[in-house]
Amino acid sequence: MILFAALLAAATPAPPPSPGEIAAVAPASAWRVIAPENLMLLETARGTLAIELAPDFAPAHIAAIRALVAAGRFDGGAITRVQDNYVVQWAARPDASKALTAGGAAAVAAGSTATPGGVPVSTGPGDAHPAILPAEYERPLKGLAITPLGSADTYAPSGFWNGWPVATDPKAGTAWLAHCYGSVGVGRDNPPDTGDGSELYAVIGHGPRHLDRNITLVGRVVGGIEGYSSLPRGTGPLGFYKTPAEQTVITRVRFATATDPRFEVLDTASPAFAAYLAARTNRTGFFVRPAGATDLCNVQVPVRAVPGR
Amino acid sequence: MILFAALLAAATPAPPPSPGEIAAVAPASAWRVIAPENLMLLETARGTLAIELAPDFAPAHIAAIRALVAAGRFDGGAITRVQDNYVVQWAARPDASKALTAGGAAAVAAGSTATPGGVPVSTGPGDAHPAILPAEYERPLKGLAITPLGSADTYAPSGFWNGWPVATDPKAGTAWLAHCYGSVGVGRDNPPDTGDGSELYAVIGHGPRHLDRNITLVGRVVGGIEGYSSLPRGTGPLGFYKTPAEQTVITRVRFATATDPRFEVLDTASPAFAAYLAARTNRTGFFVRPAGATDLCNVQVPVRAVPGR
Repeated sequence: MILFAALLAAATPAPPPSPGEIAAVAPASAWRVIAPENLMLLETARGTLAIELAPDFAPAHIAAIRALVAAGRFDGGAITRVQDNYVVQWAARPDASKALTAGGAAAVAAGSTATPGGVPVSTGPGDAHPAILPAEYERPLKGLAITPLGSADTYAPSGFWNGWPVATDPKAGTAWLAHCYGSVGVGRDNPPDTGDGSELYAVIGHGPRHLDRNITLVGRVVGGIEGYSSLPRGTGPLGFYKTPAEQTVITRVRFATATDPRFEVLDTASPAFAAYLAARTNRTGFFVRPAGATDLCNVQVPVRAVPGR
Repeated sequence: MILFAALLAAATPAPPPSPGEIAAVAPASAWRVIAPENLMLLETARGTLAIELAPDFAPAHIAAIRALVAAGRFDGGAITRVQDNYVVQWAARPDASKALTAGGAAAVAAGSTATPGGVPVSTGPGDAHPAILPAEYERPLKGLAITPLGSADTYAPSGFWNGWPVATDPKAGTAWLAHCYGSVGVGRDNPPDTGDGSELYAVIGHGPRHLDRNITLVGRVVGGIEGYSSLPRGTGPLGFYKTPAEQTVITRVRFATATDPRFEVLDTASPAFAAYLAARTNRTGFFVRPAGATDLCNVQVPVRAVPGR
C-alpha cells in the first residue's frame, strides 16, 4: 500500500493549497498581534472566551465596557440567554445604586417582550440602567483602506479592514462592522440608545446581518467560543434561561496581560490574506464545483493563539 | 402603570407585524404537513432530531437512507463529529459484510485527512462502503415554480420551492438545495460518489454555501436541533471525537407515524409567506434601519410542530 500511495502521489499534481494551508504557512509579518488592552477575557466554568474589541468602531461603548470591567461589575454576573442559531448573551451584576423606579424598569421590560427579533436587555425591577450611550452603528468610511470582498455580498459592498469584516455605504461615506458568527454586540431595548455595555452578546448562528446598523457591535470572539456555543439553549422566550440555576456564573472579566496566550489575526491587507480569500472563494481538493463567490461572513478571517510566557 | 400603558397604546400606532407574528396568524391553508414517510426521526439521549427528507432533490440517496433505516443500521450508531460553526455528523453501525480490503479502506481514510474543508466520512478498516450512489448535487429547474428571494443572493439566483431554500442556474436550467443552518447532507470522501447515506451531517453554523453542488443534500432539520447544536465540540481534526466515549449513541432512527408530533412548513407559495419574507427583508419594531435585503439562509422558513394523537 505504501508503494501504491507513493505511485499515486507521483502521478497526481499537487492540488492548490487549501485556505487553512495558506494561513498555516503565512509569514510572521502577515499576522497582527491583538493588543492586550483590546483583548477582553470572560472567564467561566466553560473556559475563557477571548474577545477582541474594536475601538475604531465603537469607542464610547468600549470605554463604558472598560469602566464596567475595571469596577468588577461583570464578576459574579451570568450568562442569561442562549438562543439557538442566534446569540449567547451575558450580563453584569445589577448596580443597585442605579436602580430606577419600579415603574420605569417595568416599561423597559415590556419593551423587551415586544421585540422578538432583537437582542434586548433582560432588565427587571432593580436592575435598570440609565440610557447614557449614543448609538455607534456606523462610522466614516474615510480613513479605512478596505480590502474588497471580491464578491457581491447581498447586504452591502463589503470587505475587510485590519482583520474585521466590514460593510460599507460608499455614497453615504459610512462603514460598519458586520454581524457574523462570533461577532460581539451590546444588547439594547427598543430605544436605540438604551444599551450601556452591561449586557453583551456573541453570535452563535448564521450571520444575522439584519442587525447591522441596528445595534452596536464592539468586537468579536477570537478564542473559546466552542465552550459557549455548546451551552444548553434557554427554554424561555428569546432563549432566556427560565431560572438562575440554569445560568452560567461569570467568574471574572479582565483584560489580557503578557502572561496570557497571545492572539494574532491574519493581516487582511497582506498577500497571504489575498491568497486565503481567493482560496475561500474557489475551493479545491474535496470540491468539484468551486462556488466562485463568498459572502462576507463565510470568509472567517484566520486567528491563531500563541501560548503566553 | 396600567393606565399609563393603556394611554401609550392608544397614542402609538401599532407597528407592522413581525415575521414571527405573521407566521403565528397564517391560516391553516398556508401550512404544508410533512408526510410521515419523509419525516425521519433520530433518537438519542439528546432528544429527537426530526428531519424532513427531500426526495424531489436526492431520490437515490434517500432510497439508500430508507434501506439503511429499514435494516436498523443506524440503531447503535453514533454521533461521531461536532465541529463548531460547521456540522454535527453521525454514522450508521459498520456493516461488516461490506468491508473492503484493508488497503481500500486506508486509501479512503487518507483522502479524509486531505480534505479539511469538506465533510468526509470517517471510514476506517472494516468500516468501508462500496461506492454505489451517483452525485445528486442538482436537478432540473423545470417543474419547480420558485418563489423568488427578492434579494440578490451572493451565490446564485435563489428562492423557495415547497418550503425549501433553493438556488438556481437559470441558464443551465438547474436547481439545488442550499446549505443553510439545519441542512442535512451525506458525508463523502474525495471522489464525489463515495457517500452511501450511512454518514449524515446537519449544519450548525453559518450557511456553508461553498458546499452547494459539492455534496448531496437530502433534507433539513425541522425539530430538536437545539439538543445537537449544543453538543460538546470534538477536539480531534475536523471536530471528530477522539474517543468512542465522547460519542453520543444513536438509540434508533425511524420514520414518523400518526402518533408522533406532526410537523408543518409554511407554504412558500402562500400570501402568508410573501408577507413573512417581506418582513424578514425589512424588519420593524426593534429595528431602526431595515436591511432592505436578505440572504437566502437568513430567511428561515417557518416550521411548527403539532402534538401527535
